[in-house]
Amino acid sequence: MTDDEPTSTGDMESPVVYDLDPECTLDEVTEDGLYLATVNGVVEYGVFVDLSEFVSGLVHESKLDGEYEIGDQLVVDLEDVRENGDVSFRSVDIENYELESVAHEYDITPVDKLEDAVGSTVYLAGQVVQIKQTGGPTLFHVRDESGIVPCAIFESAGVRAYPEISVEDYVRVSGTPEHREGAIQIEADSLTALDDEEATEIEARLDAAVEERAAPADVDPLIEWEAFEKLRPDIESVAKLLRRTVLEGRPIRIRHHADGDGMCASIPVELALERFIEGVHEDPEAKRHLFKRLPSKAPFYEMEDATRDLNFALEDRERHGQKLPLLLMLDNGSTEEDTPAYETLRHYDIPIVVLDHHHPDPEAVEPLLTEHVNPYLYDEDYRITTGMMCVELARMIDPEMTDELRHVPAVAGISDRSAADAMDDYLELASEVGYDPDELEDVGEALDYAAHWLRYDSGRHLVNDALNVGCEDEERHHELVDFLAEKSRNEIDDQLEAALPHVEHERLDNGAHLYRVDVENDTHRFTYPAPGKTTGAIHDHKVEETGDPVITIGYGPDFSVLRSDGVRLDIPRMVTELDEEIVGGGVSGGGHLVVGSIKFVKGRREEVLDALVEKMAEAEIDEALSSTKSSV
Amino acid sequence: MTDDEPTSTGDMESPVVYDLDPECTLDEVTEDGLYLATVNGVVEYGVFVDLSEFVSGLVHESKLDGEYEIGDQLVVDLEDVRENGDVSFRSVDIENYELESVAHEYDITPVDKLEDAVGSTVYLAGQVVQIKQTGGPTLFHVRDESGIVPCAIFESAGVRAYPEISVEDYVRVSGTPEHREGAIQIEADSLTALDDEEATEIEARLDAAVEERAAPADVDPLIEWEAFEKLRPDIESVAKLLRRTVLEGRPIRIRHHADGDGMCASIPVELALERFIEGVHEDPEAKRHLFKRLPSKAPFYEMEDATRDLNFALEDRERHGQKLPLLLMLDNGSTEEDTPAYETLRHYDIPIVVLDHHHPDPEAVEPLLTEHVNPYLYDEDYRITTGMMCVELARMIDPEMTDELRHVPAVAGISDRSAADAMDDYLELASEVGYDPDELEDVGEALDYAAHWLRYDSGRHLVNDALNVGCEDEERHHELVDFLAEKSRNEIDDQLEAALPHVEHERLDNGAHLYRVDVENDTHRFTYPAPGKTTGAIHDHKVEETGDPVITIGYGPDFSVLRSDGVRLDIPRMVTELDEEIVGGGVSGGGHLVVGSIKFVKGRREEVLDALVEKMAEAEIDEALSSTKSSV
Amino acid sequence: MTDDEPTSTGDMESPVVYDLDPECTLDEVTEDGLYLATVNGVVEYGVFVDLSEFVSGLVHESKLDGEYEIGDQLVVDLEDVRENGDVSFRSVDIENYELESVAHEYDITPVDKLEDAVGSTVYLAGQVVQIKQTGGPTLFHVRDESGIVPCAIFESAGVRAYPEISVEDYVRVSGTPEHREGAIQIEADSLTALDDEEATEIEARLDAAVEERAAPADVDPLIEWEAFEKLRPDIESVAKLLRRTVLEGRPIRIRHHADGDGMCASIPVELALERFIEGVHEDPEAKRHLFKRLPSKAPFYEMEDATRDLNFALEDRERHGQKLPLLLMLDNGSTEEDTPAYETLRHYDIPIVVLDHHHPDPEAVEPLLTEHVNPYLYDEDYRITTGMMCVELARMIDPEMTDELRHVPAVAGISDRSAADAMDDYLELASEVGYDPDELEDVGEALDYAAHWLRYDSGRHLVNDALNVGCEDEERHHELVDFLAEKSRNEIDDQLEAALPHVEHERLDNGAHLYRVDVENDTHRFTYPAPGKTTGAIHDHKVEETGDPVITIGYGPDFSVLRSDGVRLDIPRMVTELDEEIVGGGVSGGGHLVVGSIKFVKGRREEVLDALVEKMAEAEIDEALSSTKSSV
Repeated sequence: MTDDEPTSTGDMESPVVYDLDPECTLDEVTEDGLYLATVNGVVEYGVFVDLSEFVSGLVHESKLDGEYEIGDQLVVDLEDVRENGDVSFRSVDIENYELESVAHEYDITPVDKLEDAVGSTVYLAGQVVQIKQTGGPTLFHVRDESGIVPCAIFESAGVRAYPEISVEDYVRVSGTPEHREGAIQIEADSLTALDDEEATEIEARLDAAVEERAAPADVDPLIEWEAFEKLRPDIESVAKLLRRTVLEGRPIRIRHHADGDGMCASIPVELALERFIEGVHEDPEAKRHLFKRLPSKAPFYEMEDATRDLNFALEDRERHGQKLPLLLMLDNGSTEEDTPAYETLRHYDIPIVVLDHHHPDPEAVEPLLTEHVNPYLYDEDYRITTGMMCVELARMIDPEMTDELRHVPAVAGISDRSAADAMDDYLELASEVGYDPDELEDVGEALDYAAHWLRYDSGRHLVNDALNVGCEDEERHHELVDFLAEKSRNEIDDQLEAALPHVEHERLDNGAHLYRVDVENDTHRFTYPAPGKTTGAIHDHKVEETGDPVITIGYGPDFSVLRSDGVRLDIPRMVTELDEEIVGGGVSGGGHLVVGSIKFVKGRREEVLDALVEKMAEAEIDEALSSTKSSV
Repeated sequence: MTDDEPTSTGDMESPVVYDLDPECTLDEVTEDGLYLATVNGVVEYGVFVDLSEFVSGLVHESKLDGEYEIGDQLVVDLEDVRENGDVSFRSVDIENYELESVAHEYDITPVDKLEDAVGSTVYLAGQVVQIKQTGGPTLFHVRDESGIVPCAIFESAGVRAYPEISVEDYVRVSGTPEHREGAIQIEADSLTALDDEEATEIEARLDAAVEERAAPADVDPLIEWEAFEKLRPDIESVAKLLRRTVLEGRPIRIRHHADGDGMCASIPVELALERFIEGVHEDPEAKRHLFKRLPSKAPFYEMEDATRDLNFALEDRERHGQKLPLLLMLDNGSTEEDTPAYETLRHYDIPIVVLDHHHPDPEAVEPLLTEHVNPYLYDEDYRITTGMMCVELARMIDPEMTDELRHVPAVAGISDRSAADAMDDYLELASEVGYDPDELEDVGEALDYAAHWLRYDSGRHLVNDALNVGCEDEERHHELVDFLAEKSRNEIDDQLEAALPHVEHERLDNGAHLYRVDVENDTHRFTYPAPGKTTGAIHDHKVEETGDPVITIGYGPDFSVLRSDGVRLDIPRMVTELDEEIVGGGVSGGGHLVVGSIKFVKGRREEVLDALVEKMAEAEIDEALSSTKSSV
Repeated sequence: MTDDEPTSTGDMESPVVYDLDPECTLDEVTEDGLYLATVNGVVEYGVFVDLSEFVSGLVHESKLDGEYEIGDQLVVDLEDVRENGDVSFRSVDIENYELESVAHEYDITPVDKLEDAVGSTVYLAGQVVQIKQTGGPTLFHVRDESGIVPCAIFESAGVRAYPEISVEDYVRVSGTPEHREGAIQIEADSLTALDDEEATEIEARLDAAVEERAAPADVDPLIEWEAFEKLRPDIESVAKLLRRTVLEGRPIRIRHHADGDGMCASIPVELALERFIEGVHEDPEAKRHLFKRLPSKAPFYEMEDATRDLNFALEDRERHGQKLPLLLMLDNGSTEEDTPAYETLRHYDIPIVVLDHHHPDPEAVEPLLTEHVNPYLYDEDYRITTGMMCVELARMIDPEMTDELRHVPAVAGISDRSAADAMDDYLELASEVGYDPDELEDVGEALDYAAHWLRYDSGRHLVNDALNVGCEDEERHHELVDFLAEKSRNEIDDQLEAALPHVEHERLDNGAHLYRVDVENDTHRFTYPAPGKTTGAIHDHKVEETGDPVITIGYGPDFSVLRSDGVRLDIPRMVTELDEEIVGGGVSGGGHLVVGSIKFVKGRREEVLDALVEKMAEAEIDEALSSTKSSV
């Protein structure tokens, strides 16, 4: 309640007279209070007065002092409420008083109680998170502490109701909850922007509720692993941000690496988020509108993908009044190559979160990110795979998924050749739910193979079946994995058979074996496995055949893929040097000690490769280094 | 009716007392029957009893023996039914009796009679073929002997009603047929799984009805042709399977060769199936949801297409509760190259049917197919084109299409250069509806040209107009064909003009002329005609110029296209030999005696082509063989 | 009113008896008229007669002459209308009379007054522009002088109502306007084809209204420019045609050049048309269904795009009953290369309109076009850019857009390097709304860069933000432009750095510098900038470095891009000569004096380029010619 000046004397002993808001009801009138009333009728035996729109009654002439006309104000107190509901007041003769306005105490119904109030009038207070103009009514999606519900208001023929109200505003809605297409929707009579005081109060309440509901589930680690625990606070922070994002009605888009580990990372998070969205939204279609997952074909976030994502997001905002999404990058996103795409999105309200285990460039990316989780930031490395991190992340979002996910970290680890000590524990965990190491490898191989043919599709169901997360038929899972893994191996064998006779060998000065293959001329093109995986398969074959140290170069017209076992290649440094040394070579690329790729201008290929090999011949031998046992 | 034990004595002379099902009505009560009744009210002048939910009445104290309380059971017979509907019973004193339960005789309304019952309560019995969860009610699509109708049941807010009921279950639905979006839909009150006995009965009835309704139409052959008649039983069998598939509510997806014959095959079947679906389903949108046709760009079913098709099918199953589809391959699908795709689908419930006239590999594909129709399986050959087979197939599905299709077998035959004797009869048939051979060739040329530019689109209306099947404007058909055929010929001429000066000629030891053209370097690329058709055009030109025997090789970086007239090339054998002889050549491919294609590793092109030409020089001359007059 | 013969005597003095249409009401009966009546009841005290379905009454026996039976006809006049609405007539004894039928004077409600008539019965008269069969009712979209409204008629379950009525027919609809999905829709009781006379009248009225409403807004030129004024009547004619197209309910599809000028042309026209559609249609979704804009990636309208566009249009016609669209080509479409696509569309009712400023081939294209606007047709040239023309066009469609568009002609001019004298005025105009030349150049650069990554998307919102037309956040506009323009320049610099060291130089006999670059081998591929823009950047760099005259050739495997400053290259002539001289070279291409491109067969590249350079060495030096200052 706030002070109001008109007839206030400032005298602390003046009695208080209450001025009721028009919405106040008789429940808000007490027997010992004084009220400001307005005459709305004069009759022989007294006057009728209004205290609010809903509180009226008679002041009998015997309780009345003086003459009144319609519109006159006087101070009254409550005399009687009869059984039939008639109310009578007494005029109170008072000159100095302090006037206090009484706000109506709305009987607010929380979103998660609307089901019980279907058909009756309710009030709702919360924040607008989406405004969708349909051909008919305007749909305001309003969130409170307990959920999000669409409120339909009809102005006229596709015309925006309450154009002064925007997404993020705090409002009070009065209306009737109805089943519409089966879901709860409020057929609203009115929508009122809250004043600052009320808004601040609701905001605080919603914030407190979000703070509480966004808290990640407190799950025990699947295995004990000290190194991993260093990252846990970061992952919890992402879990909280994602839950908050859902609670605030903002869409989420995942872009992930299209390989085994990328799938092990994104599928669990996808399911966890969809289930959480279902719990928050009254609209059962919400998970379709608010969540989308897509693979990236490149190992980084390409401008073309970013432009397309932005365009879809802007289209959704215009057509459906949605907020712009949060972008969640999984198993890629940590490198400098991602920055042009991030910079494009930065001009719009699109927070970006990265979970990755590839060698990061924090200086380049972190200014553009809301959260960045990467084991290298904690002096750990690729051995903590993104799939391992995301299984924990998914469990923090939806702890009930735990049982479905026990085999997933092992698949992720095997897919990305993680040499982590913890792999033993993960393998043990997987074996408890029936997976031996061969089967886990098959699952990884199947995911890789499926990802290749799916190209730009998320391949949702097929991939769920291959990973056995959200899969309905375990027998099919096993059959499918057997089939896909075998297809994958056969096609890799075919590729090796074609390629191996063409591989050129030389011995470098540092004693390393160097193998080169022209993936354009000497392998099957436009099929599985693609050049990167083909080079890897040749390298692994040669390491097994020869023993360390081995370097393999798979080169195409304007690129090459590099792999090393037992030789320390500082690939980023090599790229920088090549770019300086070879004028017009246009050399760029990335990677780390044992894995990398280089792009160059087609016409300078020989020069670039020769210079590269020279550098490799001078590189230090370090038998501990292995790409055969690391992620590509 | 089944026995029930409680008070049964096993004495064969005991009278029978009937225990009515709760749903039974007065119509099911006879004057001379004894019934088990339950007291539901005790009054001064007697007791009120229930025989079922819908059959109740008074037993007057004068007809009553002893005292009863609510819930007591007694045996009664019918005394009287008054004009006002009141029913009275008499108590019957009887000790030993056999109790028989009486199932309610539901007055089942068949799907095709629902229109007359709009607004009244009906019962429906049948099998669930699709369960779609909407944001509101759950839609169970139920089929009976006469059709398929959606039944909507509302549980709550997007929640699945009757989760215990699955697709394929047999059910009884009670509800009210209504027009919803104009189509008939049952607003269901309840849905009950039938017990085994009832389900078996309905299943038998549905099976019998499907058996009858699925029977292919008994159409007379368009022409007399002995060779073709060998295939007729196979085609009838496919017609029956397709009709059954529609009757059982399963979707159908066609993948077909994107050339003239493939269009002549798929367009008639598409129209016939759409019309049949319209007749079976109450939902007028069913044909859009249950049918899809797409061209394959490759001459086989690629993994990428199969993965995409599977993914869409799984998505439709999740979102719309549809069954997985039947896949119908037209004018391709008979070869070993198709098997990886088939094996992928095999893990799901997706029957595959092939009608093809390309040289088949039955051992490879048949274990994966439900039906396989191919003239080579009957010692016939490509001369019976897929278009010819599918015109008969379409007529078996919808005999009323006959008049629209008379010119189509001739177009198919000319497109695929069929040298069948029956071509004369087909040309005669076409000429009866106004097409002379030149115009038929133009139609084939127009289809080829349109297919090229349509790429992955079905091009439905444009192709219908070009083929004059489902075309609404015959004048446009003729204009369009003239235009497209002329464009096609001009662009082939342009291509020949560019290519012919580069064609290399040599004379092989066996006397054949060999022509080689580098389709990558010496022809227009990425345009019409593509390399295969370009090679064919060059070959035809050279055959005409030179006379037999002629072989033409069109080669690109890692493939070549082969054509022969007058030389017996056993291409599959050549491919096998080349793959063994050329280490790291990665040679694969297929074809038959006069037409084929080979893939190899780019870097071994010269070696592969040289070895290939050597083999060709040793091949047997056989002037009867001609690719110029055969399908590519 | 028309004559009717039966009892007419032809005697000019015969009295007139009126025969009322069944729909006539009492308002159409006058006190002094004679009417033909039909007996519908015989009672003791007289007979009841009908004059129409709505006009009935008693002829009292005292006013009646003779005996009548039901169905008999007699002539009456009006006796009395009582307060209670009862009507009585008198029989009139008359033998010779002239019968005149009286058409009911429908009280027609215009579309734009339907909102006030919601819930009551109305009549509407107009032309059918779309017939959409839904699963439920048939929707006839009917236009009158004031707008277009959907009229729903339910026949049965997805069955087409009034199959005899087609798009373009004139009809009278009786029904009730309702809000459906919020928009006005008429729930129609009946739909009647107008007879020829009525149709002609309505047609004339609609034509007059369209004529008036289609008239382009009379806007003052943004700047004074004599050269431009020559084109104004053509542009007005297009504006009128586009407005008429909208008023007649036909969809519009824009295809435009995917560069800066193409965006400056298409974005304003898109917004203007969308706003105009909103004003004409009651259906708020109309603008989504009736308008689509897509960039062309090639500099001409490719067969593949045309085939796809046609296919979509035919699909929309079938599924939504829409008319086929008008195609509006912006910033390309004037050349012979566009004709195959146009010829394909010509077989369907798809008018084509071109606004372009590239060197046109009017003889080739004009027979296929409805309108063709191009400055070259008026002895002007590329300096009048399409963006400049389209800003005026947009203003003629929606004059309220003027303020949003003041900077756009300058952006268009700078993007396409327009050397027009009027550029100063356009720059001045842009500077008045806050754009200095550098910023305008940035906007153009940003548009080019965005267009590259958007590929086949319209990129609607992103492009609106970059151009600041229909952009909601001006700050974002500026930030985004800065970012994109900088990215563009950096990537062009990277490309130059890679390419310049490979550029080959020679001095031609005519004194010109010739620079050649292999864009396949010596530049970054598949990235920004693409070969054409790369060649342009190299050329500009060399012109600046060397001074005139300079020719630059950027060549790939089977194409080359040409630029000249200071040398008069008649590229079309060179192409014709090369095609004749080099057998099997397959040379084609286009362009004009200083800009062009050539395609050829890959294997003849050296020969083609050598011959080309020879011709260039003989070309005339003309320092006035510059591609550096002209559109590519």
